[in-house]
Amino acid sequence: MLELEKDPEAKLKEMGLSLPEVPKPVASYIPTLIVSNFLYTSGTLPMENGKVVYTGKMGEKNNVIETGYEASKLATLNSLSAVKNALGSLSKVKRVVKVTGFVNSSAGFTDQSKVINGASDLLVSVFGENGKHVRSALGIAELPLNALVEIEFIYQIG
Amino acid sequence: MLELEKDPEAKLKEMGLSLPEVPKPVASYIPTLIVSNFLYTSGTLPMENGKVVYTGKMGEKNNVIETGYEASKLATLNSLSAVKNALGSLSKVKRVVKVTGFVNSSAGFTDQSKVINGASDLLVSVFGENGKHVRSALGIAELPLNALVEIEFIYQIG
Amino acid sequence: MLELEKDPEAKLKEMGLSLPEVPKPVASYIPTLIVSNFLYTSGTLPMENGKVVYTGKMGEKNNVIETGYEASKLATLNSLSAVKNALGSLSKVKRVVKVTGFVNSSAGFTDQSKVINGASDLLVSVFGENGKHVRSALGIAELPLNALVEIEFIYQIG
Repeated sequence: MLELEKDPEAKLKEMGLSLPEVPKPVASYIPTLIVSNFLYTSGTLPMENGKVVYTGKMGEKNNVIETGYEASKLATLNSLSAVKNALGSLSKVKRVVKVTGFVNSSAGFTDQSKVINGASDLLVSVFGENGKHVRSALGIAELPLNALVEIEFIYQIG
Repeated sequence: MLELEKDPEAKLKEMGLSLPEVPKPVASYIPTLIVSNFLYTSGTLPMENGKVVYTGKMGEKNNVIETGYEASKLATLNSLSAVKNALGSLSKVKRVVKVTGFVNSSAGFTDQSKVINGASDLLVSVFGENGKHVRSALGIAELPLNALVEIEFIYQIG
Repeated sequence: MLELEKDPEAKLKEMGLSLPEVPKPVASYIPTLIVSNFLYTSGTLPMENGKVVYTGKMGEKNNVIETGYEASKLATLNSLSAVKNALGSLSKVKRVVKVTGFVNSSAGFTDQSKVINGASDLLVSVFGENGKHVRSALGIAELPLNALVEIEFIYQIG
């Protein structure tokens, strides 16, 4: 396991990024759960101020690759916010383990990888070598609230 | 970790629910697998007496939210039946970790969360605080046997 | 846990199968990652010599069940190649834990299980009883590079 090069929250600030407020849990499920040295997150949407900011499907003309990339980045920031809320500090993340990215895709859209790079690139920027993870990028038929992406994360802690 | 408030099987009985018979494994895969203190389940369909009871897609007029909710509940009962079969007793479940719910969705259906609440609500009714989990709800294009939902579970044991 | 009946790489050779070369990682994600006694893989496509060999959707007339079965087998060989690369030898796999198979599916195709049997059957042929796993088979709307299948694996090691 490699050492963190820098405090991840300092790194976020340096990138001009701030963590969105964690949405209040509205149902029987919770944003994060720790078992052994794993922290699992719920599927995370690209939310800001309690609203999904990026909607519709990739392949529709208003949703270009860059839109999807930004949506993935925002969903990841939401996830990091939930992780910070659970752990107190992002520096307690030892490793990003897995990213599973579901991209709301219209027929014929096959660039899911480029969309989920918005998540992967951010995690590596923030956590350095420890941000490198396994990942799946998938083209899903529909998503809750018509979100453009939904992303799940597994982190290793402690 | 919180203590179980009540025996989960007594709780199921109190709710008037019984566990379906576990379908015999028909292929190279198995219904449950334990590694360390995790119990993983295979994707579970809403089966009764060896048949998928809820079929088709959400958004089709015969499949209203309540139908999807019941389908999720039945898939979860099937999962609990497999878990009981593996552990001997549901009281050996320490925590419900993760629910990944795939909802067979026609174009424009975006209420996957309400459908998967059928799983989440049941787990919290049965396991109390220990039933709270992380979760993803996803709108899938097609499912085996045209099932209305397929749900995977991870439980913490021992 | 059962003992391996035979060296898995010898078994592959006996079956006339060879492991494809591991594709070079092209982004912020990596092919495999080990945490505790789990080895996670990225979503794996049916690649050969750096190209996706099986494309399109099941239900299209050129993609019959046997095509999908072979695509699943090839994706699994790619995964095994990455696992060997990570561990040095496939005999360090203690157990195949989980297979999550996403099958690129056109409307009305519901035989995802038969397609993912290509993965499950191979794993049991190679690892014997230790190859039995939990699994989900899902019909996905679109996949990266228009691949016919994408499959994720979790292995137990050590």
